Amino acid sequence: MAPMVLVVGVEGIPLIKPNDDLAKIICEAIRRQGVVLEDGDILVVSQTIVSKAEGSVVRLDEVKPSVQAKIFAEATGKDPRIVEVILRESRKIVRLRHSHLITQTRHGFVCANAGVDVSNVSGGFSVATLPKNPDESAKKLRKKIKELTGKDVAVIISDTSGRPLRMGQINIAIGVSGINPLLDRKGEKDLFGYQLKVKEIAIADELASAAELVIGEADEGIPVAIIKGYKKYVKDEKASAKKLNRPIKYDLFI
Amino acid sequence: MAPMVLVVGVEGIPLIKPNDDLAKIICEAIRRQGVVLEDGDILVVSQTIVSKAEGSVVRLDEVKPSVQAKIFAEATGKDPRIVEVILRESRKIVRLRHSHLITQTRHGFVCANAGVDVSNVSGGFSVATLPKNPDESAKKLRKKIKELTGKDVAVIISDTSGRPLRMGQINIAIGVSGINPLLDRKGEKDLFGYQLKVKEIAIADELASAAELVIGEADEGIPVAIIKGYKKYVKDEKASAKKLNRPIKYDLFI
Repeated sequence: MAPMVLVVGVEGIPLIKPNDDLAKIICEAIRRQGVVLEDGDILVVSQTIVSKAEGSVVRLDEVKPSVQAKIFAEATGKDPRIVEVILRESRKIVRLRHSHLITQTRHGFVCANAGVDVSNVSGGFSVATLPKNPDESAKKLRKKIKELTGKDVAVIISDTSGRPLRMGQINIAIGVSGINPLLDRKGEKDLFGYQLKVKEIAIADELASAAELVIGEADEGIPVAIIKGYKKYVKDEKASAKKLNRPIKYDLFI
Repeated sequence: MAPMVLVVGVEGIPLIKPNDDLAKIICEAIRRQGVVLEDGDILVVSQTIVSKAEGSVVRLDEVKPSVQAKIFAEATGKDPRIVEVILRESRKIVRLRHSHLITQTRHGFVCANAGVDVSNVSGGFSVATLPKNPDESAKKLRKKIKELTGKDVAVIISDTSGRPLRMGQINIAIGVSGINPLLDRKGEKDLFGYQLKVKEIAIADELASAAELVIGEADEGIPVAIIKGYKKYVKDEKASAKKLNRPIKYDLFI
């Protein structure tokens, strides 16, 4: 049997509000769609709805920008209140050039604007920040889904991200539960019997990218995908998406 | 109908030799597998088999390392002949540190060892280089598949690649035909009617990553995947994967 992976978009998820029971809403949408959840399925959930359900939204009229935020706002042409939120979400500034503000977030991700999202939050007077602890968010979702359906799925929280060297954005994993985000192939032999030297595949990022093909954060409002048939992943109860962050001191490009 | 994408691994492709008719071999394998190719399907083909079919293989006993290659070999602990091949494939050295040699290839990709692959080439006395012109390789495959099956598919040539900032490798697109590698969503409105500011999705990379979930370059020998059901892509007869290379002068990390 040829390996086969199916990526299904979950439709009919309403706009998410703070304190919504996300696991329940997702499971109900899946049921309405007639999709049967199975053990080993992987659920990819866009961070946008996780942030909203967790209330990771900041009202800009309640933000008082610091002097530093004002200086960076001047340098980048951004709203000083938004820069203030970005700085609060960051542990380190990695690049500040032209209109770009790239920081390392509290979680350790290096990304533009610390992942602070100005779109998709109602009114235009608020911004969404990344979930406080995306691994923990994934873990909670997974546990609740198990309670609701009896099925043991893996959960990936995804975000759209730019990257150095290459144009365009792709979806990556910022939180995981029940799946080791890296697939170690170092010990394997290639077709001619040579030992593969360096081959650690960032499968959680690849799964997030595969999910993006059906996830339309904006145009269709499909914030969740189910991935079926991917059997290679290693189940890991203590997995963390932080394993995907290259420590800055080991990065050749920083 | 919920959006749904199916990724199918193509089995039974034999070890590829120089001058093999790759399109024919792939089409026959697909037919044997009972999969029906349709207009709009996307074929993701691992660069390894393209390089082999095109004879992009260098015998190391025929390589005479230059002085520069010897110096870099000393610095990185690599075989001077392999470094010589890497330098021939490169237009610029981007990073030389510890055992890492990262260059910009003739095509404009920035990657480790100019994509020169020491595994998966028989005998251990040869190395494989990237296809000379991966867009052209994709174009030829696409044309030949059209002739053989009558179907208008898109073709992506993929490679496994490390990346700055993040651990692990993912599959990316190094050649495309019939598909615009970027999906422009700048003009779209988000769920609340705001204009999305910057959103250009590198769908060719995401499709390559989705394909990697079924492609096992080494362990199973599945070098080709068919992606069905992805309707969002823009057909582009003149597309090039070079659009995915961020010009070095515009890169914040180089």
